[in-house]
Amino acid sequence: MSRVVAPHIYVIFGATGDLTHRKILPALYNIVSRNGVGEKCYILGASRSDWTDEKFRDVARDSLTKKGLDLTSWNDNHVFYQSLGKKSDDFAGLKARIEALEAEFNLPGNRVFYLSIPPQVYPSTIEALGNAGLNTSPGWTRVVIEKPFGHDLESAKALNHTVHAHFSEEQVYRIDHYLGKETVQNLLVFRFANALFESQWNRDRIERVEITVAENLGIGGRAGYYDRSGALRDMVQNHIAQLFTLIAMEPPTCFEADAIRQEKIKVLQALQPIDPFEDVVFGQYTAGEVDGEAVPGYREEADVPSDSRTETYVGLRLHVNNWRWQGVPFYIRTGKRMAETLTRIAVCFNRAPVSIFRNNGSPNLNRNILLITLKPEEGFDLRFEVKSPGEPFNVKTQQFRFRYDDVFGHVPEAYETLIFDTMVGDQTLFVHAEEAEMSWKYFLPLLTQHVAVYPYAAGSWGPSKTQTLNEHWNAGGNALSKG
Amino acid sequence: MSRVVAPHIYVIFGATGDLTHRKILPALYNIVSRNGVGEKCYILGASRSDWTDEKFRDVARDSLTKKGLDLTSWNDNHVFYQSLGKKSDDFAGLKARIEALEAEFNLPGNRVFYLSIPPQVYPSTIEALGNAGLNTSPGWTRVVIEKPFGHDLESAKALNHTVHAHFSEEQVYRIDHYLGKETVQNLLVFRFANALFESQWNRDRIERVEITVAENLGIGGRAGYYDRSGALRDMVQNHIAQLFTLIAMEPPTCFEADAIRQEKIKVLQALQPIDPFEDVVFGQYTAGEVDGEAVPGYREEADVPSDSRTETYVGLRLHVNNWRWQGVPFYIRTGKRMAETLTRIAVCFNRAPVSIFRNNGSPNLNRNILLITLKPEEGFDLRFEVKSPGEPFNVKTQQFRFRYDDVFGHVPEAYETLIFDTMVGDQTLFVHAEEAEMSWKYFLPLLTQHVAVYPYAAGSWGPSKTQTLNEHWNAGGNALSKG
Repeated sequence: MSRVVAPHIYVIFGATGDLTHRKILPALYNIVSRNGVGEKCYILGASRSDWTDEKFRDVARDSLTKKGLDLTSWNDNHVFYQSLGKKSDDFAGLKARIEALEAEFNLPGNRVFYLSIPPQVYPSTIEALGNAGLNTSPGWTRVVIEKPFGHDLESAKALNHTVHAHFSEEQVYRIDHYLGKETVQNLLVFRFANALFESQWNRDRIERVEITVAENLGIGGRAGYYDRSGALRDMVQNHIAQLFTLIAMEPPTCFEADAIRQEKIKVLQALQPIDPFEDVVFGQYTAGEVDGEAVPGYREEADVPSDSRTETYVGLRLHVNNWRWQGVPFYIRTGKRMAETLTRIAVCFNRAPVSIFRNNGSPNLNRNILLITLKPEEGFDLRFEVKSPGEPFNVKTQQFRFRYDDVFGHVPEAYETLIFDTMVGDQTLFVHAEEAEMSWKYFLPLLTQHVAVYPYAAGSWGPSKTQTLNEHWNAGGNALSKG
Repeated sequence: MSRVVAPHIYVIFGATGDLTHRKILPALYNIVSRNGVGEKCYILGASRSDWTDEKFRDVARDSLTKKGLDLTSWNDNHVFYQSLGKKSDDFAGLKARIEALEAEFNLPGNRVFYLSIPPQVYPSTIEALGNAGLNTSPGWTRVVIEKPFGHDLESAKALNHTVHAHFSEEQVYRIDHYLGKETVQNLLVFRFANALFESQWNRDRIERVEITVAENLGIGGRAGYYDRSGALRDMVQNHIAQLFTLIAMEPPTCFEADAIRQEKIKVLQALQPIDPFEDVVFGQYTAGEVDGEAVPGYREEADVPSDSRTETYVGLRLHVNNWRWQGVPFYIRTGKRMAETLTRIAVCFNRAPVSIFRNNGSPNLNRNILLITLKPEEGFDLRFEVKSPGEPFNVKTQQFRFRYDDVFGHVPEAYETLIFDTMVGDQTLFVHAEEAEMSWKYFLPLLTQHVAVYPYAAGSWGPSKTQTLNEHWNAGGNALSKG
């Protein structure tokens, strides 16, 4: 697969918005700074605001400078702006402008449309693109959509339906920025380049897998969104489903989008239905203490109804009914206002079948655990047993440690990785329509099944009820300690 | 197995000698410093020299002080000396002295005889002990013998015959100080406490095992001994055979001497005969450079015959014909005046069966390698593959690292560990008579099979001919780099 960038126009819808200036333009800056990319990339901001090229260039330069970027690789002559006018579904002007730029710079008609706009206007924008004939071009055309991909199965299907009415799936790049993380990409390399681990990656050798996506932050000012969404929609259905399928999937035939996404879908297909009373714990944080500071409970947050039943914590036990994983529980937990901000996968291997040291004071050996950490520091740890030196005989757990930061310099931000992929046409790290739908279908019913919502103190590890799912998850349990 | 020290007399033959004062007494000091041990241990130096208790105490205190020990735990009232007189085979006086001390201090008759004397006088000393009735006592009696255990199979058998005429095998502690190393003990813990590794410890998952015992030193002033001995006798038959059997053995039923030694013997029994023309490379160092200094060749060393054919380097390929190891080569090399001082075992696992990244610029993945280092720093490393961040897609080898020194404080010296074991009666780390004999029987014939001796420059990694054994062993080959 070629990773060379072809000449193209990168169209950003929502060009005046916060995400564009905070994330997308800095990512583009880092990309066009690379050898040979700058001269091939033309950026066209688009929005209803009545800005000029100059105004957009000024604001863009400001945004980059604020990020500490020195602008040496920034070429204003490659940056343009097109107002969509008040009738946002009339894209004739946009089309004319794109074609004019392509003519002026002798471009082959390659286009990316990045939708950095509210999800509510995804459908109208996609239809407008299609109606204007912007779903096709003399070169390639790609459309980038940020999550959420719908609000439930019905809305996800409707969105996919609209998208597919105008674009083929090969043109669609659904961004889940968790998937841009180097560690997630590396997860696939780690799994499939290290025979030592992959040969043990199954029910014969693994006792359980734990996935923790914890934040110590609350909901910030996003009550309006969050109270309608909740943790299941906000984190489980998308990010965690992605992490989970990457950990559980079979080896793909090659490291290419279709091969990988097929394997991820197969994992979702093999999922055992969740028992809403046995396999799920919902929680909602109450007032507590985070990092030594008193913080309010969820129902006391601004704009949250005082009788809200929205879950800010989800604990789950999943089972994958296939040859590789039958009988191995996958434990998942995610929450707001937890003890720390930590995204970590713990692969817990079987213990030694017997301790030959049972008569030497070590009847119980700890299991080997592989920790894959995405946040706060990306890296890997491996727990193993050694003899501690001297007398008395004593087996102790030690930890191999690897952190990306310790070894490599600049680790690209998620957006940089993902936007570059949209330029070179690599869908590996993007979500397939079927994945999104299957995930909604699998997880969302829990919200209508009257799962009890347990309180937990802000700054804790969630409701103690979670221990009925996974006895190892208690305050500071072993897969948690940062060690 | 109790690790509690019972009251006893620790008799050191060769009490006026260098080893006693440089190694044995400092080790004893560290042991008697431990809680409760000092009051149970009575030290009785013995030698032909006409010393008094006072003289021995003075010299002992001097030796300990020179080692930087502060003597706070040293009790002169527990230290004695007995001259054996010129007739060293008359131990009646020794016996009387031991019994007198036991009476004086109300000791139950537990005795250790540590033979810190030249190997030539082992047989006469052991016979004298037996003839004096010192092979038995009201408590337990143990005899400690330093390597070498004979010079070849015949002499080893003769020595064992003499020993067994007076002592049972359970009373005999054959010290190979390599085996006192924490890492060697830990090797057993590492293998049998970590299911992650042990479940892969076989022909299905391991491609090869490499054992390197390299010294950058020459032979020092020991030409008289070394030229008659050579590397095979000096290192392979004893130290390396021990390391090798610990790595290759089946899981013992428990961590006890008999169980472990039985398994080690089974490995030796399963060894395929060595082809002296295919599986062996002998070498002898020529003048070269070590650490930036010019050093002479072996034949130029003082007292070495100018036509000596003694091997200062041995490279070997061994095969173990059992279910676990059939087809897995064990590569061994040891030498004087090599590029660095390094004792390391490299367990080289199979590669991933296919690279799913073959179309992403990574058609070849490196294999996972577990490095077990005994010298210069004891610890473990594990080589694994990760994606290096950013573009282009690139799989890179990284290394998990664990060093005892980084984690634990005082790591006891080999002698401390071993002498303590002789006090508590733990033969786990000592060599069984049958092991010693089998090892001589297996390796020694090579010396009479006209194996060519290749020159290698001092400061190199041995004769380049070694690459015909193991292609991975070239200058700075991968299992070597300290990383």
